[in-house]
Amino acid sequence: MTYCVALNLADGLVFVSDSRTNAGVDHIATFRKLHVFAVPGERLIVLQTAGNLATSQAVINLLRTRLSHDGVHLNNVVNLYNATTLVGDTMREVMARDANSPMAAGVDLSCSFLVGGQIAGQEPELYNIYPLGNCISATDDTPYFQIGESKYGKPILDRALNYHTDLDKALRCALVSFDSTIRSNLSVGFPLDVLVYKAGSLQVPAGFRVLENDPYFEGVREQWSVGLSQLLDQLPPLPPEYSV
Amino acid sequence: MTYCVALNLADGLVFVSDSRTNAGVDHIATFRKLHVFAVPGERLIVLQTAGNLATSQAVINLLRTRLSHDGVHLNNVVNLYNATTLVGDTMREVMARDANSPMAAGVDLSCSFLVGGQIAGQEPELYNIYPLGNCISATDDTPYFQIGESKYGKPILDRALNYHTDLDKALRCALVSFDSTIRSNLSVGFPLDVLVYKAGSLQVPAGFRVLENDPYFEGVREQWSVGLSQLLDQLPPLPPEYSV
Repeated sequence: MTYCVALNLADGLVFVSDSRTNAGVDHIATFRKLHVFAVPGERLIVLQTAGNLATSQAVINLLRTRLSHDGVHLNNVVNLYNATTLVGDTMREVMARDANSPMAAGVDLSCSFLVGGQIAGQEPELYNIYPLGNCISATDDTPYFQIGESKYGKPILDRALNYHTDLDKALRCALVSFDSTIRSNLSVGFPLDVLVYKAGSLQVPAGFRVLENDPYFEGVREQWSVGLSQLLDQLPPLPPEYSV
Repeated sequence: MTYCVALNLADGLVFVSDSRTNAGVDHIATFRKLHVFAVPGERLIVLQTAGNLATSQAVINLLRTRLSHDGVHLNNVVNLYNATTLVGDTMREVMARDANSPMAAGVDLSCSFLVGGQIAGQEPELYNIYPLGNCISATDDTPYFQIGESKYGKPILDRALNYHTDLDKALRCALVSFDSTIRSNLSVGFPLDVLVYKAGSLQVPAGFRVLENDPYFEGVREQWSVGLSQLLDQLPPLPPEYSV
């Protein structure tokens, strides 16, 4: 499984991906699921992937290879929406190729992508591309998307995030969302790939990896658990009619 | 969908069930999913149900009807484990009957049960009965079970609960788990049926219903959301190498 989150906020974009892949419980591995396409000063396009790893890696590979070809590619596409079309077309191309294999029966070749970024002269945008290759766009009302194992980490995003949350707090919120997921589900795991982009900068952030036992993450995890337990203690006592 | 939680703690048992059922988005209704079988002073057996409503209601009905029959039933079964066997057998009986229908193709008849309680002279116990009719028992290490739409509400239980949590705090924790689930998933909804049983009492608690807009629940929900946001603010600032 996989867990990826992307946020499109007033101040910029936040991307966090885990890196665990599994085919059953005994074939667990680490693969990067956050991929950057950029022309510094002109565009940044970040892709996150979930689903069939062979499909998603083939898609990234084709998108990367075609940067040096003639025609439309991610380094010259005129806007983010057209970038999603390109990614969706490439997904369908790869799945059509592999679905023709005599061994394809019963194999789920599908994958999902999150695509976010900014092109000079345009606003930052974030899209969620479904396995069909079609997509939806994040809005001020719904400024985040998740793909993969999304349920465990959704409540904290629903409660604590909105379009005007600053990037620093938003990233901490995303890290807590990952911690909740990793604790509850073995198929999501470290390291986490993180990239935070300031709206309008058109610079390519280096991003960073959060490794297992990272002291900052451990501190967040510990402080969060203690804080939650204290919050529970501080909730109003049960009214008499509910008394236990 | 459905969401039910049951906890078997040192101080007693906590049961919370939602009451929303749906067959598609346009057939939403309210049905109780928490059922009590009891002989005051001698035994309390609580059943919670998820899955096919026709199956689970038929099972409850048969179990209830057979209380006045000769033979083994929930009011005379010698221990909780045998109660789970009785419930599992009844599930299989109902599913076998309905699976024979000419219209059964493609219909998921399966359901799950949580069964918890205490019989005089024995410890309180809690079991999770799978759709096959077999079951597992809660332990000190894993003192809770969920059935139905369980993922959204799992992180708070994993973080804040353990076998020695007192009943009052455990119930608040369960209510927060329900709030997280209800916010993130439309298929789980009010009212919530709650029952808290003190270990060893062998009394049948009245239990209570938490309605939508219940002032206590609204207060918990509000204070929890504000508290989480403050917790995020208080988390340590990002280290320089992670600075956004």
